[in-house]
Amino acid sequence: MNAEEVKGFFSDRSQLDMADYLELEYYLECVGDVRKALAHFCSEQSTAQWSRVGVDEDFRELYGAKVISWEVLEELPELSYPVEQAAVGKIHACRVLVAHPHRNFGAKLPNLMTAVCGEGTFFTPGVPIVKLLDITFPENYLAEFEGPKFGIEGIREMLDAHDRPIFFGVVKPNIGLKPEHFAEIAHQSWLGGLDIAKDDEMLADVSWSTMSRRSELLGKARREAERVTGDKKIYLANITDEVDRMIELHDIAVENGANALLVNALPVGLSAVRMLRRHTRVPLIGHFPFIAAFSRLDKYGVHSKVVTKLQRLAGLDAVIMPGFGNRMMTPEQEVLDNVHECLREMGGLKRSLPVPGGSDSALTLEMVHQKVGGVDFGFVPGRGIFGHPMGPRAGAASIRQAWEAIESGIALGEYAVDHPELGAMLGK
Amino acid sequence: MNAEEVKGFFSDRSQLDMADYLELEYYLECVGDVRKALAHFCSEQSTAQWSRVGVDEDFRELYGAKVISWEVLEELPELSYPVEQAAVGKIHACRVLVAHPHRNFGAKLPNLMTAVCGEGTFFTPGVPIVKLLDITFPENYLAEFEGPKFGIEGIREMLDAHDRPIFFGVVKPNIGLKPEHFAEIAHQSWLGGLDIAKDDEMLADVSWSTMSRRSELLGKARREAERVTGDKKIYLANITDEVDRMIELHDIAVENGANALLVNALPVGLSAVRMLRRHTRVPLIGHFPFIAAFSRLDKYGVHSKVVTKLQRLAGLDAVIMPGFGNRMMTPEQEVLDNVHECLREMGGLKRSLPVPGGSDSALTLEMVHQKVGGVDFGFVPGRGIFGHPMGPRAGAASIRQAWEAIESGIALGEYAVDHPELGAMLGK
Repeated sequence: MNAEEVKGFFSDRSQLDMADYLELEYYLECVGDVRKALAHFCSEQSTAQWSRVGVDEDFRELYGAKVISWEVLEELPELSYPVEQAAVGKIHACRVLVAHPHRNFGAKLPNLMTAVCGEGTFFTPGVPIVKLLDITFPENYLAEFEGPKFGIEGIREMLDAHDRPIFFGVVKPNIGLKPEHFAEIAHQSWLGGLDIAKDDEMLADVSWSTMSRRSELLGKARREAERVTGDKKIYLANITDEVDRMIELHDIAVENGANALLVNALPVGLSAVRMLRRHTRVPLIGHFPFIAAFSRLDKYGVHSKVVTKLQRLAGLDAVIMPGFGNRMMTPEQEVLDNVHECLREMGGLKRSLPVPGGSDSALTLEMVHQKVGGVDFGFVPGRGIFGHPMGPRAGAASIRQAWEAIESGIALGEYAVDHPELGAMLGK
Repeated sequence: MNAEEVKGFFSDRSQLDMADYLELEYYLECVGDVRKALAHFCSEQSTAQWSRVGVDEDFRELYGAKVISWEVLEELPELSYPVEQAAVGKIHACRVLVAHPHRNFGAKLPNLMTAVCGEGTFFTPGVPIVKLLDITFPENYLAEFEGPKFGIEGIREMLDAHDRPIFFGVVKPNIGLKPEHFAEIAHQSWLGGLDIAKDDEMLADVSWSTMSRRSELLGKARREAERVTGDKKIYLANITDEVDRMIELHDIAVENGANALLVNALPVGLSAVRMLRRHTRVPLIGHFPFIAAFSRLDKYGVHSKVVTKLQRLAGLDAVIMPGFGNRMMTPEQEVLDNVHECLREMGGLKRSLPVPGGSDSALTLEMVHQKVGGVDFGFVPGRGIFGHPMGPRAGAASIRQAWEAIESGIALGEYAVDHPELGAMLGK
């Protein structure tokens, strides 16, 4: 590309109708001439050859991605992460905003992903290190997505649970448990005060615990728990499976009494979530397998908040995500960003319930509540409930007691004096 | 976990019926006690709590993932890539083989991904750096997958093209071209000798070039080119879209005369590819957007050859992949590994056609042929054909001329003397 050609991939907001563009924020490490690398970056992710040979035309105006702002953060002595076949030259770390015309692909998740984190983005000459940090969508683009069918308010209404977190629990042992034992354990946890007993994200429809059998027993156990406690309860069934079986599994599980469904969003694909959203009769809860494989490193891949945003766009009513503390190896700001993506204004889309999790128990509830800074979150212990020394009913009770203490402004230790289930966790 | 508990996650081949297990090879950087970290790694990706409270049972025998071999590669002064909230302690780089019981999830791609590169794998205490390097499947597991419907031989038969590479071309300009112009350019490239004219991976069903209109015109153009040349030709239409539209797009495109379909495997999800495989009447060709986001770095994420293997399992008849040379920033051995994954014995599955690509032209064919070490590959230039100074027909001819020169053992420069299309590329 010569200097004149490079110019065709630079513009600014005042020259563009931003309703036609997504704004993509990237961290890049550019080798060699920065402006040239950025022009190539836009070219590769849009119209890489912008005219036919021998025809006087220029597709860049309508179809070209364009740099609308950029800054060099610093010059680096070497790439932040070695890339074996990278170009050689001066290295500059940059932050760049690209306006990408959505007419190139439309309101379709797989095509959106192809454009913003596909071949063009990751195989630009001179740009070996790339992280997609954020996407901002114009209102007209957002309006083409259905988003969550129930959202936070829908889940709260189902449970008649307001002004407090939603209490989930991952039934453990997660793998290997017979449906009969699974139902008994879930039942106990509901009696102890859990709102939502859930399948582990690794437990799906398997020969030793079919969705049909498990949802039948869990549906019964849930209704029984509702009868005994007088409270509404949810059994959250994991229907993650081959995409051409998910609708069938939805129907089986919901017919049998599962009243929310878990789906591993990236393994089935965000588009399969959107398909399910069009069909579902119950809330859809997303889990996060595979996301860390491309989001953990600070300067490479795709930021997890982009994935949270896309999960909300696809229609998840709640998003389970890596939570606070060293256990989940996720910076606090990143967890907060993900929580925020569930709760912020986003066109006319309903809010998703953020569920930051990872080895939680009665002992971590206060910390999560404080960091989130409100009650609009889900709390999702596993072994913290089902590994409780007094059993799952006591495990669930310990969570509710911790919340009572927090609400009353009483220290956990003090509240535990008259609440042995909480006391057992404190003594651990 | 105490020392006795740790033992429950170690075993060896002689003690296991390996037909029940996938073999997973990982690169890990472990902080602190290595054996303990490895036990946690297996626990987190399988049965994290292996008994109910108060019940004498152990789910590890049937459901536990187990380390079957491991070696410390070296002690490291720090993690290869910084992880903000990682544990602190001595760091050991390890290579580990895990036997993971496939009864935990069955022959389902989303559930397989959840188990082998999901939460458990990437959120093990003491293991902040993980790369899934390989998966070996037992025959009984492979037998549950359909694999490619056509495979290399099916594509060769369609084209009556044997004993030579298959010549693809990505029609350019890739984005913005009207269907009428697209058809004309593709037609010219077929007349010049191309086997397969293809949509760019970013070009799908859009308002300014609908699949219906484009495939109608391209179907006609293809048949006309077949009539004129006497050779069989393929129009490869990109039906990447929301998964609940892909079957419909298949039907429209194939009805209109597209005789192979492109699908961006990761953006739609591998499971959607498998769904399409069950329905398709024509070969399915996979493209590689998004894969580099988790495979480029040497010591983190998932190795691209795992993805190639899964794409073949899902049923892709050809796999387009980053090719040789610095342009694609992929180590040569990695490209060769991916080519090999398409061609090697894999249960009863047909072989997929490997298509290593990236800024190819008549000038790179000899290099690709030599590195692949045979003719079982696809060659996929874009601008190398459609940016040819004499036009797309000459561009396609230049590729065929390059192949004639290679077959005849004549140097390109010598062959170009009587072949101006090739000469124009050499002169560039």
